Amino acid sequence: MIQFSEQERDAIYKVIFSRRDVREGFLPKPIPEDVLTRILEAAHHAGSVGFMQPWNFIVIDNVLIKQRVKSIFLEENKQASQNYDGERKKLYESLKLEGILEAPINVAITCEHKRGGNHVLGRNTIPETDLFSTCCAIQNLWLAARSEGIGAGWVSIIDPEKVKKRLGIPDSVSLVAYLCLGYVKEFAAQPLLETIGWRSRLPLHDVIFRNEWKQS
Amino acid sequence: MIQFSEQERDAIYKVIFSRRDVREGFLPKPIPEDVLTRILEAAHHAGSVGFMQPWNFIVIDNVLIKQRVKSIFLEENKQASQNYDGERKKLYESLKLEGILEAPINVAITCEHKRGGNHVLGRNTIPETDLFSTCCAIQNLWLAARSEGIGAGWVSIIDPEKVKKRLGIPDSVSLVAYLCLGYVKEFAAQPLLETIGWRSRLPLHDVIFRNEWKQS
Repeated sequence: MIQFSEQERDAIYKVIFSRRDVREGFLPKPIPEDVLTRILEAAHHAGSVGFMQPWNFIVIDNVLIKQRVKSIFLEENKQASQNYDGERKKLYESLKLEGILEAPINVAITCEHKRGGNHVLGRNTIPETDLFSTCCAIQNLWLAARSEGIGAGWVSIIDPEKVKKRLGIPDSVSLVAYLCLGYVKEFAAQPLLETIGWRSRLPLHDVIFRNEWKQS
Repeated sequence: MIQFSEQERDAIYKVIFSRRDVREGFLPKPIPEDVLTRILEAAHHAGSVGFMQPWNFIVIDNVLIKQRVKSIFLEENKQASQNYDGERKKLYESLKLEGILEAPINVAITCEHKRGGNHVLGRNTIPETDLFSTCCAIQNLWLAARSEGIGAGWVSIIDPEKVKKRLGIPDSVSLVAYLCLGYVKEFAAQPLLETIGWRSRLPLHDVIFRNEWKQS
C-alpha cells in the first residue's frame, strides 16, 4: 500500500497552507508544456461522481481572447463596485482582482452535465455533484501549480454566459471557473483580503461542530 | 518565498494520484483528535470567494445519528437502482457505495450562503462560488486525510434535506457533502468504477482544448 513519510505529509500540508489566490505579480516567463500537462493531469485525477470526469480545460494563450475576457471582467467589476459605499468602495476599487492579461496562461474549466449519460451513478438526489467534482479538480490544479512555483488566480467577477459565448462553449456546458496561471515573483504570506483587513480568518473551532449544527 | 523541492513536489503529485473514494475496508481504529484537527485545518485553508469561508464541518461519531443517515441512504439507493436494467442493475446492486456505519467518523460539510453579508466580494455574477469554495475545502480535506493514511468516501446518494433535518442544519445552509472517514486496510490502485469496468478514465488530451471549445 502506498504510504506517506512524515516528510511527504509535511509537503502536502505545506502546499495546502501556502497556496494563494494570485492576482498580481505574474512573470512573463512561459509555462513549459510538460509542466502545464502535469498540472492538468493532477486536475484530471480528482474524484468524480460516477467517475463521470465532467470537466474540460480550455487553455488560453491567445491575446485577443484574453482581451475580450478582460473587457467582460471590467464591465462586471464596475457594477460590483456599486455594492459598496465610502471607504469600503475606495478600498474595493483599489484592489487588483485579476491577472488575465499578465498571466501567460488562462484556463477555463467547464462541466459537461450530460457526460456519462442520463443516469450517472451516485448523482440522483444531488444533480450538482458534477459541479462539485469539477471544483475538486480545480483544487488539485491549484495545489499542483503551487508546488511548481506557479500562481493561480480564480476570476469570479465575470459573466459566465458572455465568456462561454466568446469561447464557443455550448449552452449545455457550465463554465465553472476562469483561472489565470503563471510564475510569480512571490506568494503572499496570507490572503490579500486578510492583509488589507477586509475580513479575518475564522478560528478553526468556530467552524467545527459535533454531531449536530452548532454543537461543539 | 516558500518553495518546493523535487521530493516535496513528488509527494504532492503522489497524494493527488493515490487519493481514492473509499467505501469499504474501514478499520475501527479511532482517528486521534490531533490528526482530525490537522485534516480539518487543511480544509479550512482552502481559498474562498471574498474570503467568506462559508463552510462548517459537523464531525459525527454518534451511532444513532449515523444509523439515521444510513437509513436515508438505503431509501435513496433503492430508488437509484431503478435507473438500471438487467446486468447493469445487478452490477449496481452489488456495489458498496458508502461506509457510514463502519467509518469511525462521518463529516457533514455545509455552506452558509449569507456568511460575510449580502455583498460578498467577487460573488456578484456567480452566486454558486460559495459552494465551489466549499468543494475546494473538501478536496483539501480528502488529500490531507490520504496523506495520513485515512480514507474518505463521499456519500452522494442521500436526500440532503432529510440529512439536514437530522443534523439540525438551518434551511438557509446547504449540505454540500457527507463524508465517511477512517483508517483503511488498503487504498485501491484505481477507482472502483474503473476496476469493475463501469466507466474508463478519459485520455487527458480529450479533456484539454486550446483557446476555444473543442479546439486542440
